[in-house]
Amino acid sequence: MKNISIIGVGLIGGSFALNLRALYKDAFIQGIDQNDAHIAEAIDLGLIDKKGNLESIGQSDLVVLATPVNAALKLLPNILDRLSPKALAVDMGSTKSTICQAVDGHPKRAQFLANHPIAGTEFSGPSAAHLSLFKNKTNIICDIEKTNPELSKPVLKIFEAMGMNIRYMNSKAHDKHIAYVSHLSHISSFMLGKTVIEKEKNERNIFDMAGSGFESTVRLAKSSPEMWAPIFEQNKANVIETLEEYIQNLNHFKALMESDDFEAIRSEMENTNYIKTILKGIS
Amino acid sequence: MKNISIIGVGLIGGSFALNLRALYKDAFIQGIDQNDAHIAEAIDLGLIDKKGNLESIGQSDLVVLATPVNAALKLLPNILDRLSPKALAVDMGSTKSTICQAVDGHPKRAQFLANHPIAGTEFSGPSAAHLSLFKNKTNIICDIEKTNPELSKPVLKIFEAMGMNIRYMNSKAHDKHIAYVSHLSHISSFMLGKTVIEKEKNERNIFDMAGSGFESTVRLAKSSPEMWAPIFEQNKANVIETLEEYIQNLNHFKALMESDDFEAIRSEMENTNYIKTILKGIS
Repeated sequence: MKNISIIGVGLIGGSFALNLRALYKDAFIQGIDQNDAHIAEAIDLGLIDKKGNLESIGQSDLVVLATPVNAALKLLPNILDRLSPKALAVDMGSTKSTICQAVDGHPKRAQFLANHPIAGTEFSGPSAAHLSLFKNKTNIICDIEKTNPELSKPVLKIFEAMGMNIRYMNSKAHDKHIAYVSHLSHISSFMLGKTVIEKEKNERNIFDMAGSGFESTVRLAKSSPEMWAPIFEQNKANVIETLEEYIQNLNHFKALMESDDFEAIRSEMENTNYIKTILKGIS
Repeated sequence: MKNISIIGVGLIGGSFALNLRALYKDAFIQGIDQNDAHIAEAIDLGLIDKKGNLESIGQSDLVVLATPVNAALKLLPNILDRLSPKALAVDMGSTKSTICQAVDGHPKRAQFLANHPIAGTEFSGPSAAHLSLFKNKTNIICDIEKTNPELSKPVLKIFEAMGMNIRYMNSKAHDKHIAYVSHLSHISSFMLGKTVIEKEKNERNIFDMAGSGFESTVRLAKSSPEMWAPIFEQNKANVIETLEEYIQNLNHFKALMESDDFEAIRSEMENTNYIKTILKGIS
């Protein structure tokens, strides 16, 4: 694992680069990014060795695709076309069905590993990259049977060396579940932020009255729109389903309030306290 | 400030007791709680000196009402009846209009300070109490003009000594604003937890796929139903209004997704990123 191309040198790509450097002292990493300022910053921060381009992809042993998912979808077939026979392309996106479908008939499909590390923060760009981003995080590999095991094995070892816990899942199941535990959280948080901002034109009131509870619930509303709009687009059907169920639950809660059934509200909250047990497994 | 009664020796009452002890070495604190196990725990933890009762309230210089807001509403008139002429009762509840209205005509109204420290965690009970709970937190005093300044001044000094930043507001404005920045966050979080739990019957999938983003957004769903159901009840009209706006924003987001207007979605999220600027003032 010597020559590596990282496409998209932001939080995820940059953190992956940092980890590769820590594991392989002789790794030579070229970074590709449509934002030249990001490339310059990534070189300054020592994340990458030089600015690369798609034309030189053929010299890479590993190509890491860490762009927003709309760009990844467009780039992947082109990358596979250029890939040398022993090289692997791996993506990092939060949606898996669309990208897997897009290369399903590609002659080099076996050189692609569909991958989603459940890691991230609400910050973005090369300066947000850090070495421990993937440590103890779940990394979901999709449709593993379609990837050449000789190529995927060394990369799975890299993931493990970075501290990731690997799970396998088919891409459709991935997109369905991730809509609930990740995509919906982002929408609920963004819409909470929107609702409060719209109402509280006098910013000082939010400022003074908001506590750590609001801050926690609205944290994801700081996330990058450029990253998230394409995720919602690619996982449209699943996300709409989660949204419908969420809105239905909110309407039900409102109806209980309107009918003064606060005992039912108490009981709903008590049932949902079960989330404590679930979260213990996460943190 | 020697004899103090604390009614409700949970997270808030217990933390207040800890702070009083740190400020007044000779403070004698009696605890009143309908849960005898809480009283025993509070004595063990050194939060209070002994179990008290409403009959001995007349000997207190300060009575701190830190129960759920429905109990506070019932207790306050009774407490005021028993209060000695130089004593003050102060509450800690998250709703202010109802309790202020309830004692508006009470002959000892000037001996009540309506108060809401914006402090708390998702944990509850005496064991959750800690000394730094109020440090650098906003404390909102409502309808200050109705309290005898000779009685309120020393208590405001105590709040300041505990590290609180004091703001003044009328009780109706308090309830309207707090519905947005606190009560709505709790509902959005509880309903997110409910939606995910309902869908993911196979717990293992939540477990493995949920990251720190989900954890943050759903954190408030661990909160105490006994505390929160009465808050929603007392702030019913304001909370329903925030819920309607929140649901409307979610429906709008869903409609944008259904019509494939992901540019509008991107733009909505970009506008809501403004929350970053607001949150900088909180943390």
